[in-house]
Amino acid sequence: MSEAATQAILIGRKPVMKYVLAVILQFSGGAKEVVLKARGRNISKAVDVAEVVRRKFMETVQVKDIKIGTETVEREGNVRNLSTVEIVLEKTE
Amino acid sequence: MSEAATQAILIGRKPVMKYVLAVILQFSGGAKEVVLKARGRNISKAVDVAEVVRRKFMETVQVKDIKIGTETVEREGNVRNLSTVEIVLEKTE
Repeated sequence: MSEAATQAILIGRKPVMKYVLAVILQFSGGAKEVVLKARGRNISKAVDVAEVVRRKFMETVQVKDIKIGTETVEREGNVRNLSTVEIVLEKTE
Repeated sequence: MSEAATQAILIGRKPVMKYVLAVILQFSGGAKEVVLKARGRNISKAVDVAEVVRRKFMETVQVKDIKIGTETVEREGNVRNLSTVEIVLEKTE
């Protein structure tokens, strides 16, 4: 899989459906894989996005891999550990 | 792996460290695998629990598998879809 064929979407504060649409557009544009990345509280939203895409819109999309990790973030002088997730979606058809 | 050797912990509203302790106790008691289950907003907390156990307390514990899914929940007459996660932790030593 070449780098160019994998698109990453960072899940932030926008509503779930904004990200769902972004995923659909990337797959419709020819992407074979789309990676959802999220940190902290947005991790739950990343799972929502993956589930809505897979269940409601694109039944040929499936979860290929899920990785979790930790990032160190400095904010206002405090160092915090934030959990991260990467959900790799692939189009199977 | 027999069913008895796998313990499940449902991640709810308690602080992260309560669940971290529960995981450590189960592994210390001989469990080979511990499954963290969470729904909705608690999904992020389940990832936190897995990361804290693995990074701070038990370096022989690793993430074996992560599954996501959807559950239909009826609350006050409304039917909602809630995302779910299952994180399987295993002790490698």
